[in-house]
Amino acid sequence: MICVSTNFCSEWEGFKEGRWSHGSVNVRDFIKKNYTPYDGDESFLAPISKDTKKLWDEVLELFEQERQKGGVLDMDTKIISTITSHPAGYIDKDLERIVGLQTDKPLKRSLQPFGGIRMAVNACKQNGYEVDESVVELFTKYRKTHNQGVFDAYTPEMKLARHAGIITGLPDAYGRGRIIGDYRRVALYGIDLLKKDKQEQIDTSLVRMTSKNIRLREELAEQLRALDDLAELGRIYGFDITKPASNAREAVQWLYFGYLAAVKEQNGAAMSLGRTSTFLDIYIQRDLERGVITEEQAQELIDQFIMKLRMVKFARTPEYNQLFSGDPTWVTESIGGLTVDGDHMVTKNSFRYLHTLENLGPAPEPNMTVLWSQKLPQAFKRYCAKISIETSSVQYENDDMMRATHGDDYAIACCVSSMRVGKEMQFFGARANLAKCLLYAINGGVDEKTKQQVGPKYRPITSEYLDYDEVMERYTDMMEWLAGLYVNTLNIIHYMHDKYCYEKIQMALHDRDVKRYFATGIAGLSVVADSLSAIKYAKVKCIRDEDGIATDYEVEGDYPKYGNNDDRVDQMAVDLVRTFMNMIRKHHTYRDGVPTMSILTITSNVIYGKKTGSTPDGRKIGVPLAPGANPMHGRDTHGAAASLSSVAKLPFRHAQDGISNTFSIIPDALGKDDQVFMGDIDIESIANEMARKTSDG
Amino acid sequence: MICVSTNFCSEWEGFKEGRWSHGSVNVRDFIKKNYTPYDGDESFLAPISKDTKKLWDEVLELFEQERQKGGVLDMDTKIISTITSHPAGYIDKDLERIVGLQTDKPLKRSLQPFGGIRMAVNACKQNGYEVDESVVELFTKYRKTHNQGVFDAYTPEMKLARHAGIITGLPDAYGRGRIIGDYRRVALYGIDLLKKDKQEQIDTSLVRMTSKNIRLREELAEQLRALDDLAELGRIYGFDITKPASNAREAVQWLYFGYLAAVKEQNGAAMSLGRTSTFLDIYIQRDLERGVITEEQAQELIDQFIMKLRMVKFARTPEYNQLFSGDPTWVTESIGGLTVDGDHMVTKNSFRYLHTLENLGPAPEPNMTVLWSQKLPQAFKRYCAKISIETSSVQYENDDMMRATHGDDYAIACCVSSMRVGKEMQFFGARANLAKCLLYAINGGVDEKTKQQVGPKYRPITSEYLDYDEVMERYTDMMEWLAGLYVNTLNIIHYMHDKYCYEKIQMALHDRDVKRYFATGIAGLSVVADSLSAIKYAKVKCIRDEDGIATDYEVEGDYPKYGNNDDRVDQMAVDLVRTFMNMIRKHHTYRDGVPTMSILTITSNVIYGKKTGSTPDGRKIGVPLAPGANPMHGRDTHGAAASLSSVAKLPFRHAQDGISNTFSIIPDALGKDDQVFMGDIDIESIANEMARKTSDG
Repeated sequence: MICVSTNFCSEWEGFKEGRWSHGSVNVRDFIKKNYTPYDGDESFLAPISKDTKKLWDEVLELFEQERQKGGVLDMDTKIISTITSHPAGYIDKDLERIVGLQTDKPLKRSLQPFGGIRMAVNACKQNGYEVDESVVELFTKYRKTHNQGVFDAYTPEMKLARHAGIITGLPDAYGRGRIIGDYRRVALYGIDLLKKDKQEQIDTSLVRMTSKNIRLREELAEQLRALDDLAELGRIYGFDITKPASNAREAVQWLYFGYLAAVKEQNGAAMSLGRTSTFLDIYIQRDLERGVITEEQAQELIDQFIMKLRMVKFARTPEYNQLFSGDPTWVTESIGGLTVDGDHMVTKNSFRYLHTLENLGPAPEPNMTVLWSQKLPQAFKRYCAKISIETSSVQYENDDMMRATHGDDYAIACCVSSMRVGKEMQFFGARANLAKCLLYAINGGVDEKTKQQVGPKYRPITSEYLDYDEVMERYTDMMEWLAGLYVNTLNIIHYMHDKYCYEKIQMALHDRDVKRYFATGIAGLSVVADSLSAIKYAKVKCIRDEDGIATDYEVEGDYPKYGNNDDRVDQMAVDLVRTFMNMIRKHHTYRDGVPTMSILTITSNVIYGKKTGSTPDGRKIGVPLAPGANPMHGRDTHGAAASLSSVAKLPFRHAQDGISNTFSIIPDALGKDDQVFMGDIDIESIANEMARKTSDG
Repeated sequence: MICVSTNFCSEWEGFKEGRWSHGSVNVRDFIKKNYTPYDGDESFLAPISKDTKKLWDEVLELFEQERQKGGVLDMDTKIISTITSHPAGYIDKDLERIVGLQTDKPLKRSLQPFGGIRMAVNACKQNGYEVDESVVELFTKYRKTHNQGVFDAYTPEMKLARHAGIITGLPDAYGRGRIIGDYRRVALYGIDLLKKDKQEQIDTSLVRMTSKNIRLREELAEQLRALDDLAELGRIYGFDITKPASNAREAVQWLYFGYLAAVKEQNGAAMSLGRTSTFLDIYIQRDLERGVITEEQAQELIDQFIMKLRMVKFARTPEYNQLFSGDPTWVTESIGGLTVDGDHMVTKNSFRYLHTLENLGPAPEPNMTVLWSQKLPQAFKRYCAKISIETSSVQYENDDMMRATHGDDYAIACCVSSMRVGKEMQFFGARANLAKCLLYAINGGVDEKTKQQVGPKYRPITSEYLDYDEVMERYTDMMEWLAGLYVNTLNIIHYMHDKYCYEKIQMALHDRDVKRYFATGIAGLSVVADSLSAIKYAKVKCIRDEDGIATDYEVEGDYPKYGNNDDRVDQMAVDLVRTFMNMIRKHHTYRDGVPTMSILTITSNVIYGKKTGSTPDGRKIGVPLAPGANPMHGRDTHGAAASLSSVAKLPFRHAQDGISNTFSIIPDALGKDDQVFMGDIDIESIANEMARKTSDG
């Protein structure tokens, strides 16, 4: 409990006090007590300001230069990125209302070698840059990296499984991300009070010095230093952020400094923002009521803030970009939703955030995510639909479902991972390829592509035609093996990430005793369900190579396919999710992480498919798996409702990290243009960055 | 099990095979099967060779220059010391039979910042050197050190207790040392076979990835790389040490490279050598029998090896030197002893090692330690006595006692810490000041010197005269507090040492599953025993200052004093040792270390005394405590036998890390000159470096 109770800060004047001001860091309480719900429509919104337009044009020009240079405008090769590593950087100082860049120049990518020096070197090399020799020496000889640590501890089996791709996309060569700092705290409390709170967390930590408690104490000390660094970052840009923000502009700026510190320190796969719009609305509303700001100025702050978020870039390797089909940053912002009392949390600022897609044009980042509820105000729903139709840049997630688990101050990390802001975090765990696992079950652990013995030497299936019961028995055994190997591999990754690439500032903006989700994921769900269905309801003949390895399959006859609301096969998918999740649950997890699972390959299903041989459902070698929980493309022949119904059967309890369904529809199918509907338009079905907007929790 | 069974190496020709050559690393088995016990006298020994004499004169000249420069000849300020950091360095290459220096120049002290950059900087600064700015930046911004880690996790209470000196000498600002690599393995097996063995240790490690198992796997990977580095160190000096040593010179050289790698990597408080003399005798004996070496050449190898060990130096801070009264390196070599079958292990090489004290003159390093047994051959005993009389440079320890616990291949680390070579190690833990703890018991946790509340706010004693039962009750409570705080403090230190300053090469020359002793220690035993005796048998009046803190004591009447074989007080000392050790045992120890305790302050008793106020035995503030388990100076008035009897009552079971008794006697007291006796002459009682030779297990 920080000592704020005796001292209601002058910066808070006009706010209703509460637990948030009476001695504890409690942003949720502040929001609940102070936000102004808005039921009106978008007519109040202001267009882009002249300055912002000019600034944005300059940024667009930089983006264009970046594209022309092959994707990267400039790279840092010498300065190791830390919170305070760079002097202030500007796009066009006089035009900027919100300032702060990752380096000293716009779009210059920072050098982040703590995760792995080889990755940093490769990312530079691929773009024609060379990392300074002294930096390479430092991170080779004297400062170990996350990547090195992981590979020191990996078993040969793990390396094999990783190489074959039965466990895949592992965050051992890139930052795990998926941690959302509560950046709002910087604005509401200022660094000094946050330090006081952190010091109290230290002072009340366990003093029985087990390795666990020692680790925590050291981390808290690192967090405390990171808060000092964050204050220094403010000073570098000429702001004193040790005190709370006193107006809307400062609130946006303070909050952004928190986020900026995070992206200066970490190159995570998903550096999400949290749930900031309604929080910031409180500051804007106060300024509007005080008459010190106009709506145009308010929109300008948000436009410029969003502009900065669009400019967040990382130095990444071609492998990374291949896996993620681009280099998304997943600056996910969660908008809307309801309180646990059933009141909606839409404010004017919810509109302003979405309105940036009009003022600045469509963009995949920041990843605007509407926490959808039946009870959201009608006008806001309509506006969401309008923006969706115009920009294809809005993601929707089911607030009614997640609120039950996470309350009303959670946010989405990446695309579907929900967590209470500042109270929960996730150890991101990529995926196990269940389709490939099925092939291992058939081939006794021999990889169908490399012909290497990767899995255990269980008995292969030798019959010409596959027998359902036999396959299921083998498959269960093979999944047990895979679940154990997978969790143990992730344990190493997260141990080493904490050891060598700890997210200091992000965790500094958390409570001390965070709940850690130990996220796992599966790929190939629909392929497996269809394969099992084919084996059971049709006849599947194995085609074997000269070594007796089944490398292809012939399906004789038809079979029920997942995605048609047919319980015969849908239940197979449901059973699979529950079964594998329960196998995951049997294993020790690092830091007692709570195991969860996602069904969530939105883009990486393509590369996963490349690594997977032909499957008994008739899918050929190399063909992409379906994304997430999607039915295989073209097999859901009974219409959208039937397809969605199949997906809806999957048990959230066993896939709590999210179930994604990429769903493209022709507007006409829903009636006439501009009609309100949920989901997302993806007429061309090509832009990957757009595609990932269509996920649904 | 390394795969040597099918391939008896050509370098081993002439050796009797055994388990050591049949697939496992087993130096003890090699020694037992191959050593040649020697019962004769010293008449075979050769004088110093011409070359060695010349070389040694050059070294003496360097030592002289070093003294004239104020203690340090030269310091590295730029090159961070690692196993392979420096090119080959020589004293006078043509004269050197055994080569290898810590840096590129003799007596140039290496730069070792992994333990703490501030210490490295201070050590340089105190000698007029400045550490390169880039190194300081590296170890401040990017590479955390052991010292930083420790202070991140310390509680305010720990810092206070450390500052007040009730816990003292902690290895948080210097390397813990006390780990003996089995350097003999390098000679016997060569790096390739050791790597094979290490790889097998990795391959057979637990695959359930708990943090413990991950840590071990990573450490083993580090060890494997350290072995590669060691091979590289050989190459730097022109030797291929990947294969076993094929003759005596190579054996000495290979073994020394192992040790050299350790002192290049670690600046530990005690970098002990192990038990090498009888091992090396096997190689010398084979060469002598083959006629490829003369006794003079054999002695030359040993003289030059010992010379190199005498030149081992570290960059150390004034605080360190003050604590240890000099900058000892504790290159302890354990000589003699018996096998568990009762055969003595004295060889001609045991003589040769001691003979270096004649050829090169007396010296505190390496710390020649005779593992004494009643059954050592008479001629060797006489020779030991002769060398002791002539040089005051021999330490004796009780093999008959330690053999029962440790078998016949243990060695001494530092002065009394016994451990099986390559199978056991120690977490060094410095000391708790029990005399100061008694004062805290009287003053309710308030420090008698700083007046700060350091201990818990227990009720102080307020009576004018101290009551024995009341004092004992308070003292017991205060010791319970101290034991818990002490063990928890050590847990942090060892966790961080492993994390930031891991002894890679030393642990590479260990088995995988080592036993770890968690060493603690006490200071002030005799002061406390005498104080309690004074309180019980005399009258002790408290003199209090204006704040009511007892700062002095008046003893009225006489009381039995520890060191006179008087059970009334000796039993108090015995009880104290058992009581405190049992309190230590109640606490969780890092890596499940087996708690032990030493009574062992050989030089640091002076500085501990400075930190301790007046005590109820009549000792005045600042007066040195007695060293180790010694009676207070001048109080053992009943003769040597009575004094030794008191010490001998202390239970080894509760002080298994060693009990030291610094015992100075006038030769005349034992009869005429040159008579055989045990113990050590220290006529002048001044040279600290000599003083520490007098400890006895």
